Amino acid sequence: MNKFEEKTVSTEQIFKGKIISVQVDEVELPNGKLSKREIVRHPGAVGLIALTDDNKIVMVEQFRKPLERSLLEIPAGKLEPGENPDVTAERELEEETGYRAGNMEYISSFYTSPGFANEIIHLYLATELEKVENPAEADDDEFVELVELSLEESLVCIENDRIYDAKTIFAIQYLQLMEKK
Amino acid sequence: MNKFEEKTVSTEQIFKGKIISVQVDEVELPNGKLSKREIVRHPGAVGLIALTDDNKIVMVEQFRKPLERSLLEIPAGKLEPGENPDVTAERELEEETGYRAGNMEYISSFYTSPGFANEIIHLYLATELEKVENPAEADDDEFVELVELSLEESLVCIENDRIYDAKTIFAIQYLQLMEKK
Repeated sequence: MNKFEEKTVSTEQIFKGKIISVQVDEVELPNGKLSKREIVRHPGAVGLIALTDDNKIVMVEQFRKPLERSLLEIPAGKLEPGENPDVTAERELEEETGYRAGNMEYISSFYTSPGFANEIIHLYLATELEKVENPAEADDDEFVELVELSLEESLVCIENDRIYDAKTIFAIQYLQLMEKK
Repeated sequence: MNKFEEKTVSTEQIFKGKIISVQVDEVELPNGKLSKREIVRHPGAVGLIALTDDNKIVMVEQFRKPLERSLLEIPAGKLEPGENPDVTAERELEEETGYRAGNMEYISSFYTSPGFANEIIHLYLATELEKVENPAEADDDEFVELVELSLEESLVCIENDRIYDAKTIFAIQYLQLMEKK
């Protein structure tokens, strides 16, 4: 999978933040010409389709500064450097929702914005949920509120734009497809 | 939808590129403490679920520098400043695939990475496709190859990671759900 490969001529590091870094690569195109590519590096993340025993989907409401609004999303969190996503999945479920899963199953992964970023999200299905007595706490700059929705309620939330992001819409379509199997 | 709102204390512009810009906002959290948010600004894009008369999905293979590999994706393209996505959809279909659509229908939109970017993708369903004789050309640094796949072939391409991005997986789930209606 390297059709139309663009060879790196040089790389300029623009920014190294807590979460993302940004670089501009000068590349040689397949026709020999030069161009520039603006690239955001991200550590990757997990997303959790967490289902309660009465078949509600566990979601979190949180403020998203890039959008200047809050969204309802499936629980998610970034990988620590070198971390196996299976470990991130367990940790983020507990930190964001206070649940532990008796059963955690890897579903699939996708890149969110391959044109400018290398962020990948690994999706897991978490079932047999049990509330933890003293759950590990989230990062101290994260404020989230738990909301548990039926599949039908989730579809309404897509209609009225409370659910509005790729991983959460993937999760809901995944559950719709499971139901129709 | 402004639960847990984070007020902007100050904004530092880090980078202004051809496609993205990057800023770091200092914010006041709901508990009064200060934190920083790294934000990528993106003009937004359209994605096209383009179906031929024999029900093949039109895809493009292209190299994605952030991933150092090529992917099979649905055709897509960025909005020009102030552009109505309906217009972008028509243009990008012609430029990337050489097709015009007799019928173009807006489906929905989603944010790709709300944690760090404001990129939104508007999805359209394009049918009644006809090849244009002298199609408008793509940007001169874009190299894409057309591939037309059945739904079943697309599912195989997800399995073997040739299809690997959010908007294309959304498109395939959408078509699966349409088929089961």
